[in-house]
Amino acid sequence: MLFKVEMIVALPRDIAPEEADRLKAAEKEKFQELQRAGTWRHIWRVVGQYANVSIFDVESNQQLHDILTALPLYPFMTVTVTALCRHPSSLHDDDR
Amino acid sequence: MLFKVEMIVALPRDIAPEEADRLKAAEKEKFQELQRAGTWRHIWRVVGQYANVSIFDVESNQQLHDILTALPLYPFMTVTVTALCRHPSSLHDDDR
Amino acid sequence: MLFKVEMIVALPRDIAPEEADRLKAAEKEKFQELQRAGTWRHIWRVVGQYANVSIFDVESNQQLHDILTALPLYPFMTVTVTALCRHPSSLHDDDR
Amino acid sequence: MLFKVEMIVALPRDIAPEEADRLKAAEKEKFQELQRAGTWRHIWRVVGQYANVSIFDVESNQQLHDILTALPLYPFMTVTVTALCRHPSSLHDDDR
Amino acid sequence: MLFKVEMIVALPRDIAPEEADRLKAAEKEKFQELQRAGTWRHIWRVVGQYANVSIFDVESNQQLHDILTALPLYPFMTVTVTALCRHPSSLHDDDR
Amino acid sequence: MLFKVEMIVALPRDIAPEEADRLKAAEKEKFQELQRAGTWRHIWRVVGQYANVSIFDVESNQQLHDILTALPLYPFMTVTVTALCRHPSSLHDDDR
Amino acid sequence: MLFKVEMIVALPRDIAPEEADRLKAAEKEKFQELQRAGTWRHIWRVVGQYANVSIFDVESNQQLHDILTALPLYPFMTVTVTALCRHPSSLHDDDR
Amino acid sequence: MLFKVEMIVALPRDIAPEEADRLKAAEKEKFQELQRAGTWRHIWRVVGQYANVSIFDVESNQQLHDILTALPLYPFMTVTVTALCRHPSSLHDDDR
Amino acid sequence: MLFKVEMIVALPRDIAPEEADRLKAAEKEKFQELQRAGTWRHIWRVVGQYANVSIFDVESNQQLHDILTALPLYPFMTVTVTALCRHPSSLHDDDR
Amino acid sequence: MLFKVEMIVALPRDIAPEEADRLKAAEKEKFQELQRAGTWRHIWRVVGQYANVSIFDVESNQQLHDILTALPLYPFMTVTVTALCRHPSSLHDDDR
Repeated sequence: MLFKVEMIVALPRDIAPEEADRLKAAEKEKFQELQRAGTWRHIWRVVGQYANVSIFDVESNQQLHDILTALPLYPFMTVTVTALCRHPSSLHDDDR
Repeated sequence: MLFKVEMIVALPRDIAPEEADRLKAAEKEKFQELQRAGTWRHIWRVVGQYANVSIFDVESNQQLHDILTALPLYPFMTVTVTALCRHPSSLHDDDR
Repeated sequence: MLFKVEMIVALPRDIAPEEADRLKAAEKEKFQELQRAGTWRHIWRVVGQYANVSIFDVESNQQLHDILTALPLYPFMTVTVTALCRHPSSLHDDDR
Repeated sequence: MLFKVEMIVALPRDIAPEEADRLKAAEKEKFQELQRAGTWRHIWRVVGQYANVSIFDVESNQQLHDILTALPLYPFMTVTVTALCRHPSSLHDDDR
Repeated sequence: MLFKVEMIVALPRDIAPEEADRLKAAEKEKFQELQRAGTWRHIWRVVGQYANVSIFDVESNQQLHDILTALPLYPFMTVTVTALCRHPSSLHDDDR
Repeated sequence: MLFKVEMIVALPRDIAPEEADRLKAAEKEKFQELQRAGTWRHIWRVVGQYANVSIFDVESNQQLHDILTALPLYPFMTVTVTALCRHPSSLHDDDR
Repeated sequence: MLFKVEMIVALPRDIAPEEADRLKAAEKEKFQELQRAGTWRHIWRVVGQYANVSIFDVESNQQLHDILTALPLYPFMTVTVTALCRHPSSLHDDDR
Repeated sequence: MLFKVEMIVALPRDIAPEEADRLKAAEKEKFQELQRAGTWRHIWRVVGQYANVSIFDVESNQQLHDILTALPLYPFMTVTVTALCRHPSSLHDDDR
Repeated sequence: MLFKVEMIVALPRDIAPEEADRLKAAEKEKFQELQRAGTWRHIWRVVGQYANVSIFDVESNQQLHDILTALPLYPFMTVTVTALCRHPSSLHDDDR
Repeated sequence: MLFKVEMIVALPRDIAPEEADRLKAAEKEKFQELQRAGTWRHIWRVVGQYANVSIFDVESNQQLHDILTALPLYPFMTVTVTALCRHPSSLHDDDR
């Protein structure tokens, strides 16, 4: 089941640089684990923003919630979730 | 070069059913041609809406403009364009 | 899987009264069928509005999309969909 | 008398972890007391957000105000209140 | 139980003048009946607008909904409902 | 001359409790003085909010400005002012 | 007593040219009468818009409402009213 | 050349009172110098707000920018600029 | 003196094709005349929209207003005007 | 390939003046390097704002993203990116 998730990240100005680095590294590791698993299907950077557009492929709403709120950078994110489904014109049965 | 394009379609209530059918068939044909060419990389239906989220892979801004404004349903669409680029955390060189 | 769906209905002023009655009756019948099936879990009228707040319990995003877009009054609705999940503080395993 | 209440929680970044834990535990206790009493009819987590959608069943506007403003996490909430009533199409006399 | 209701009226340009007059007269009559009953506690015109700010005193959400949706001008109104209660600083037990 | 004034209060989190108490007591005293004088005609609490809806009866725009900006809690308020006048349908010459 | 009034005019496309001319001439005549009387203190065109920014000097809210709603183009206007008063830094007792 | 400029002032809560006084005195002095010069044509206080509506009469966009950004309170202002011109209905050649 | 002007064009669906063609041709002719004169400094199409971003170089606010409101497509445009001036970092005295 | 980029700068109030000066000097240097290279085609100050409207001419979305996020003042900017292309009415093949 597919969802578009848009994430805007805003690290506070007074965060310690090592803490910021640690969070970003942990985020990247978690992201790549989910990318390898096929759960975090796509990720794109939005030009000019510290933000991304992502496509998730999950079993349930609950799984998506658990993944998002466990992200290391989650406390600094504004998150928008949009439920998607197959487009009837697509040549593919499942455009993931 | 990747762009997210969101399209909301609103056919006027007094359009003739045959005209609506003709437009939708032409739209589908044009879409599938672009999907086959790899230009219209992804399309998803937004749940509960006559709308889609799409990813385009084009040579230039101009090409994207020409494609969008030539779509049969374009006169009835509200279109939002967002420039994307590669996310630095991605495992892939090019997440299309 | 639970979703909150908010529907605002706006019938055009020049719709024939019989057509409006026919649509409302068909909508009611479809609603009650889904209510009996447990799919349309809850519906409440918003005070002062021709609008409702509803809770759907579905198998997938696709099923929700198919249900909503097949509603007789759908062409006259503005629909907002929000994905929900279990609240961790709830006493119940599944607050439907 | 039914109301939809949407609550978005934003704990300040510099709150002491023990204070945050204390507030969340107190909130949970208060919530469960009201859930048992049937006043806080439903609660759902919004996917990807530190937020909930709730349905309250109260005697009066005043009772709802007193309950909401006494919640331990109230000082950190953005609250939206919507008055609801029975939907005429419902099969039930009282969809709580 | 008190509610603030704000109503903006927008009669379509092509309504027949007699129909407009009939609706306004019916609206006025209904309003005065509710004003006499103490249900429609206050009404004020918003300066420069075809709009009013009103205070209703009702038994329940349901009663308010039934009153508003039965107003002769309701089909041409944008209505906003806000639940109110007693202000703790007031000298009066019940500021109606 | 009547005005609707809506006030949303947001005390900063780090205000000293005694300072907050002092401000609220001073606000209440000032409010009651104006309520007794008939200048602050009505006040209602908005359900679920630290906010009120008020009706002022003043001699001039200047008087209203001087009253509002002298309120003890004014520095912590978001204030919205709407000019009102008599509604032509009212049974009363002056619905205060 | 001073008010800023912003007016945006939108004549419907299918209005008869003579009717539009008649309305504009009547509006101009009414405006100049009020300008001569000192009631419509200032009027400026907003660059690029069929809109104006105006300053009214009136006895009361009621007088302003009566003037605005009697303007020949009023049915085609979106009107925004802002109550003003003397600025304490001004060199003049009354900046009209 | 005329411009409407709306300024909303928000002094931070922790500014030293003497600094605030100094800034306000400097702002007033600068304002009166510009008022005497005829550049700052009008200023009005917005009722209930720490804000003003002003009319500037300047030689160029550049002059207006230089004046605004040199105001002592500028760092604490939200500024909105609207280009104006003569209204064709005005009795005066130049409504300043 | 420079202004950014953004124009969104929305031709009504029922306009006669010849009338639309005539308007577009007249608009193009007027545009090119102003482009040659150096008044309409720049024009760019917004990707995916029937809209443009333009830079005007004019003598006064009045001249800009007269130019914009005389455009053949003006009755079908939503226009936004922003006053610009030289950027202090620019290498050029006048970035037109 | 052309993009309009709008940048609003908001330096925090407690930044050290030398740090602010250093950032602005570095920003100016980077800007002029890009202006000389023809990448940062245009820049204009928005009247009354610490903001600019810019036109970039880049090879790709990626290049624009890399440029923007490397600007010394980027952490203090709100950035809006709009993809542009040639306007069909222009006399020039490439209005840069």
